[in-house]
Amino acid sequence: MGIFTQDIKTMDDLFLHGLQDIYYAEHQITKALPKMIDKATNRDLANGLKAHLEETNKQIERLDNVFQKLDKKPSSTQCPAIDGIIKEADEVVGEVADKAVLDAAIIAGAQAVEHYEICRYGTLIAWAQQLGHEEVVRFLTTNLNEEKAANTKLNTVALRKGVNSKASTAA
Amino acid sequence: MGIFTQDIKTMDDLFLHGLQDIYYAEHQITKALPKMIDKATNRDLANGLKAHLEETNKQIERLDNVFQKLDKKPSSTQCPAIDGIIKEADEVVGEVADKAVLDAAIIAGAQAVEHYEICRYGTLIAWAQQLGHEEVVRFLTTNLNEEKAANTKLNTVALRKGVNSKASTAA
Repeated sequence: MGIFTQDIKTMDDLFLHGLQDIYYAEHQITKALPKMIDKATNRDLANGLKAHLEETNKQIERLDNVFQKLDKKPSSTQCPAIDGIIKEADEVVGEVADKAVLDAAIIAGAQAVEHYEICRYGTLIAWAQQLGHEEVVRFLTTNLNEEKAANTKLNTVALRKGVNSKASTAA
Repeated sequence: MGIFTQDIKTMDDLFLHGLQDIYYAEHQITKALPKMIDKATNRDLANGLKAHLEETNKQIERLDNVFQKLDKKPSSTQCPAIDGIIKEADEVVGEVADKAVLDAAIIAGAQAVEHYEICRYGTLIAWAQQLGHEEVVRFLTTNLNEEKAANTKLNTVALRKGVNSKASTAA
């Protein structure tokens, strides 16, 4: 879909564009997560990110099913938002010298990714409901719930598994 | 702060970087919102975005106070995440031909902005609490609550003020 070509004429077009956007985003996330996992020191953080990488691959399969239900071929559209969020996470992580502070920075970056996905799935579910795609709503809701759970786990790792408190002691 | 120069050595450095990031983001949002307001057709949507533009200016003043409390000069660091989110909103909005569908697209773009801010303020508040900056926590919490309220209003406009239902009737 070109830029400023006014190719989106209907709500169905907008919905399809949103699906292509999140499909692109999920693929970019499968590339970004391994780098975060490599750099994470806290074991709970590394394990949580690994589990979410596996989840993300299943989420992509669910999106494949969504495209199939809509009789569309799975396809991506470039998503400057997720590109920017991942770029920023990479940049900040690259600037951190201390390993404990780095864990806090990785969590912040991963939560920005989760919040973006939570937002997009929320919008897509509302649009799918409006358009009467009930089966699609179920696939998207599963993905949304996984993103919310991943975000909650990151909160737990930051606050109760000691990442933030350890980071604050870095000299 | 340079890229990959490992300038972030402590949690305080990371916190300051996060403040500079959201300070940059809030300023970019004050530039992006007027364009969204100009293009919005639904009156509730346009009024909601206008009210949030005023709020955003006050949020920047609160961030000025935060920098002051920390004995730092207010400053920005470029934030590829918000740049990407705004770029994507602009691109999608530019692709939509129908005015009713455009309103739905504007809401989606504005909610991506809100979710980004909700995420960042949540992280900054957790870090400020960890670092014992209690007064700063209060300023940031006010901003966070305003972002959450703005996001909820956008949900209401999409779902109960008829934007999504009107968009779905576009031929």
